[in-house]
Amino acid sequence: MMKRNVENGDFDTVGLSDDGRKLVILDQTQLPGHVEFLELDELMEIRQAIYLLKVRGAPAIGVAAAIALYVLANKLMENGFEQEETFMNALKMNANVISSARPTAVNLKWAVDRMMKRAEVCAGLGVDGIVMELKREALLIRDQDVDVCRRIGEHGLTLLEPGQGILTHCNAGRLATVRYGTATAPIYLGQEKGYNFKVFADETRPLLQGARLTSFELQNAGVDVTLICDNMAATVMKEGKVQAVITGCDRVALNGDTANKIGTLGVAILAKHYEIPFYIAAPTSSIDFSIPKGSSIKIEERPDLEIREMWYTEPMAPKDVPVFNPAFDVTDGSLISGIITEYGVVRPPFNKTMRELRKTIKAEEEKSNEMRGKDV
Amino acid sequence: MMKRNVENGDFDTVGLSDDGRKLVILDQTQLPGHVEFLELDELMEIRQAIYLLKVRGAPAIGVAAAIALYVLANKLMENGFEQEETFMNALKMNANVISSARPTAVNLKWAVDRMMKRAEVCAGLGVDGIVMELKREALLIRDQDVDVCRRIGEHGLTLLEPGQGILTHCNAGRLATVRYGTATAPIYLGQEKGYNFKVFADETRPLLQGARLTSFELQNAGVDVTLICDNMAATVMKEGKVQAVITGCDRVALNGDTANKIGTLGVAILAKHYEIPFYIAAPTSSIDFSIPKGSSIKIEERPDLEIREMWYTEPMAPKDVPVFNPAFDVTDGSLISGIITEYGVVRPPFNKTMRELRKTIKAEEEKSNEMRGKDV
Repeated sequence: MMKRNVENGDFDTVGLSDDGRKLVILDQTQLPGHVEFLELDELMEIRQAIYLLKVRGAPAIGVAAAIALYVLANKLMENGFEQEETFMNALKMNANVISSARPTAVNLKWAVDRMMKRAEVCAGLGVDGIVMELKREALLIRDQDVDVCRRIGEHGLTLLEPGQGILTHCNAGRLATVRYGTATAPIYLGQEKGYNFKVFADETRPLLQGARLTSFELQNAGVDVTLICDNMAATVMKEGKVQAVITGCDRVALNGDTANKIGTLGVAILAKHYEIPFYIAAPTSSIDFSIPKGSSIKIEERPDLEIREMWYTEPMAPKDVPVFNPAFDVTDGSLISGIITEYGVVRPPFNKTMRELRKTIKAEEEKSNEMRGKDV
Repeated sequence: MMKRNVENGDFDTVGLSDDGRKLVILDQTQLPGHVEFLELDELMEIRQAIYLLKVRGAPAIGVAAAIALYVLANKLMENGFEQEETFMNALKMNANVISSARPTAVNLKWAVDRMMKRAEVCAGLGVDGIVMELKREALLIRDQDVDVCRRIGEHGLTLLEPGQGILTHCNAGRLATVRYGTATAPIYLGQEKGYNFKVFADETRPLLQGARLTSFELQNAGVDVTLICDNMAATVMKEGKVQAVITGCDRVALNGDTANKIGTLGVAILAKHYEIPFYIAAPTSSIDFSIPKGSSIKIEERPDLEIREMWYTEPMAPKDVPVFNPAFDVTDGSLISGIITEYGVVRPPFNKTMRELRKTIKAEEEKSNEMRGKDV
């Protein structure tokens, strides 16, 4: 049963409809003004929903893509694709269309690849057998997302004390995952235990994810949240209102350098100045063990209009004034107190501890693959 | 002749109409979309223009109030106030109305007091004599503003090299003064000399003075200006695009602690992290020698709606989400490389150098008072 109580903060951002036939997403482009769950089972409609950021946040996109592929596979079967080969060819075309919706979102490709691999492994089970396995796999990806977030929350909570002030930037929240979020997971778990955190949400210009999404979801969940402009973070730190900073991440390099929403770097420098611990919440799927440092991460530059006019009733800057609009920045590992993963908190020196983390992950993967091997 | 070529950047923000009968202000609430000079000679109209920030920036408000008082005095005379006593009583009522338009703007009260003192000193010259003296005083206040800004520009320019990147926050520009601005004065003087600065203007949430005003006036003046969101300052510094930061100020304490637009503190911390010099441009009228440090400066908190909905086509945050909206912050003197005044650049240790500056100012004032003594 997909949870849908948005007003009480008890909802899933992405899920499968109760009749098992549709992908359900909470339309984030309408937040905070309107709450609407979209039920989708058309290929191009699903692709557009991902492209237009109706579902956003790397983990949520991955889960949406997985569920979408199952829903589309099921539809192919119902539409008469009874032979495995023609079914698989049609499914591959669907997969390519979904996969191309946002070329930079790592989790999208990852989820589509994982689903297609599952379908291939199940060759010989017949179309109905494959479709059943795809449903299992999609729901497993969803459940694993919930599990990873919850474990990040548990490890993160060990770093915090009841009543503390926590600052976060952008939205690495429930709305970016299925449930809990990453940076918000310790906050939600603390909420369950009555920790009474006081959260400060940076509004996060230019796209205002902090204002539109983070303050929305935390307020609905009953968390004590205060919205500030990005340039007020230094003041709340100086006034002693913040004891920890937690943000999400887009990609982490081997030395701890972390690419995340523009503005994260600045917050990390402020935290260092005021000796406030700065944590990154990162599912290990966001750690790129293949890059030694952050300087090799390419930063997307986005359209000028996001700064000059988007959201505004009239232009808020001269029409043609040059704009610099990087979507992300890279926070130096040296500014990061710890990286909270589902396997625990990784501390500096990251060059050493990240290698140990990689070993842990590999061991876990092998264990899980062995179990999966028995499964089919 | 008041300069009005806004498109070429050759304009006065505040002035006297060519027929000498009206206060002229460039309406800043309409920028950057519409350029309109308002010509005012009605008491309540002038008060509203100040109250509604049609003219803003401490120095510009002071000059506007001075010219307004002359314009109103002239009107009283023309309306038949021929006797000095009744004229002075009526003028005092006008002065009180203007003075109360923005109670926290120091320059407003200062300019009104100076004009009224001048009128009192001129008792016995007859109403037409007093009005003539008020015109001289108002234009002197205007000219002194231009002179102080230009001198700040000259001293500031000694700190900079051609081709450098300069970051500024909020608008301490031409639009906050009559001409040149304070933080922008070195930039405009550099422009005259072909220094080719590359300026980065923080948009300055929530009221967007950087986007609406600073990038507007610099672009019109042909300065190479790039607009960024406040949270991008760390990135442009990290990328080596900025060699100096210059901002204005609202009040400076004896130890160099500086109250200025919210966000200034954060920029100063980032500049320190990247070892970029951070300068405050401050006419000495903004230095409060009576307060030892910044902690005694009260910070104005402004309405929530500025963050939650102002400028936006629809609410960009949940309707009732708590907001913290301080209008200013205090930058520690320890983060400031130098304070650029019309008498030169004051360097740390500020507790010592500010006392020397005070002596310089007193000596200058005495010299000027002696000359004024001979004058009337």
